[in-house]
Amino acid sequence: MTTPLMALGQRALTAQPFSALLGTELLAFAEGRAELGLAVRPELLQQHGLVHGGVLAYLADNALTFAGGSVLGEAVLTSEFKINYVRPARGERLVARAVVLASGQTQAVCRCEVYSIAGEQEKLCAAAQGTIVKAG
Amino acid sequence: MTTPLMALGQRALTAQPFSALLGTELLAFAEGRAELGLAVRPELLQQHGLVHGGVLAYLADNALTFAGGSVLGEAVLTSEFKINYVRPARGERLVARAVVLASGQTQAVCRCEVYSIAGEQEKLCAAAQGTIVKAG
Amino acid sequence: MTTPLMALGQRALTAQPFSALLGTELLAFAEGRAELGLAVRPELLQQHGLVHGGVLAYLADNALTFAGGSVLGEAVLTSEFKINYVRPARGERLVARAVVLASGQTQAVCRCEVYSIAGEQEKLCAAAQGTIVKAG
Amino acid sequence: MTTPLMALGQRALTAQPFSALLGTELLAFAEGRAELGLAVRPELLQQHGLVHGGVLAYLADNALTFAGGSVLGEAVLTSEFKINYVRPARGERLVARAVVLASGQTQAVCRCEVYSIAGEQEKLCAAAQGTIVKAG
Repeated sequence: MTTPLMALGQRALTAQPFSALLGTELLAFAEGRAELGLAVRPELLQQHGLVHGGVLAYLADNALTFAGGSVLGEAVLTSEFKINYVRPARGERLVARAVVLASGQTQAVCRCEVYSIAGEQEKLCAAAQGTIVKAG
Repeated sequence: MTTPLMALGQRALTAQPFSALLGTELLAFAEGRAELGLAVRPELLQQHGLVHGGVLAYLADNALTFAGGSVLGEAVLTSEFKINYVRPARGERLVARAVVLASGQTQAVCRCEVYSIAGEQEKLCAAAQGTIVKAG
Repeated sequence: MTTPLMALGQRALTAQPFSALLGTELLAFAEGRAELGLAVRPELLQQHGLVHGGVLAYLADNALTFAGGSVLGEAVLTSEFKINYVRPARGERLVARAVVLASGQTQAVCRCEVYSIAGEQEKLCAAAQGTIVKAG
Repeated sequence: MTTPLMALGQRALTAQPFSALLGTELLAFAEGRAELGLAVRPELLQQHGLVHGGVLAYLADNALTFAGGSVLGEAVLTSEFKINYVRPARGERLVARAVVLASGQTQAVCRCEVYSIAGEQEKLCAAAQGTIVKAG
């Protein structure tokens, strides 16, 4: 079943040309959390055959923004975030899971973990934390 | 004139399929600093017509890694970084300028500014700081 | 009961003059996690009667280091961390709880939450994430 | 000569009990920048005789806040910051120099470097970047 929030999130993601270029999918979207998925393709790699760190940063940034948007409304921006890469990302798919840690009227502080998936196995690749704000 | 370091950097960038997908160019590469450029295309935008934050994060990450690699050698990884988005990114081109703040045998702490360029005008869009480490 | 790890942690904390100046206590210390407590005194405030952000940053930094040290050994340093202040810190006590997210031979990525406690009520004041490394 | 801004900054710093406990001095304060100094005393060290990372984090946080306050007004808070420790801090004094990178009506993104000083020699110990916001 598609919730109204999920439908809203799908529309927002579909409206992002950069997310379409990469092939990002919205896997889950509920108040206080968001989950994005991305199939690993050769175009997303760096020179050593791993997923490019920039792809992980993009995915974390986007998942953080969706999580923040789930409590702040559609018109939100990432103000800042940090990411730690904890393991080289290989595998068939990436999934980024973000949650809201704390939120007020105008901003939300969120966290995200990015996992790589190969077969049944999920491995933590990156962890992020950042601030989402209502757009002007 | 192309310096040996510049030639090395070009090869490394060309070998990154994700950078080829986005169209990143190496503008400058010398000991302790790196400059990357990227033409803004519709595919790089988000739903409000601005450059997607993930593109800025990718560009900052990559410029930080190149700057770190200029003092640590070719086999380097971004360990972590943070980015503050300070202004919506519009315009024709992006340029990311990164410098090494401090470096040792195995890691370098680097900073990067990302500018959007429209005509003659450059505007700061994002500022990043992070750690680059020698790969295992 | 005091575990050997707890005894080790107590010794390390007692050996930090700055932690003695502030009055930090080790509340829990086990493989992969650490918990520090601090009684709020007038000396720890800023000009508006709230706990100074620097105290929260210190406490998060120290809890992250202890968590990292629980898996990497005693000789560790904080390489970097970020902290988001999510709510003004008032109340009688602070507690910082840190966990290891991922660790290897030489470094651990850790997260920490800092809570203020007034009576029975705990409120999240700050959230941190950082890298702990084995000292040279 | 003491400028009006400098006098304002002195009052704000003097009104922070935690800064008085540590002994922080305001060395410079002008639109877009702030400089704080701190004499290294045994009470500020950790167990290996170095300045505690929490002291560096406090000093960076406070310098970032003053820099932000120089353009946003007196009632400001640090929303978030990150710090990289680049060298163990020894010596007689610390100095933190912060500048505003970009600012709007309600927030400023600032950077700070913390140096340790021994005799004539200044060494970079830490680099920070963060967001200062107008208090509600």
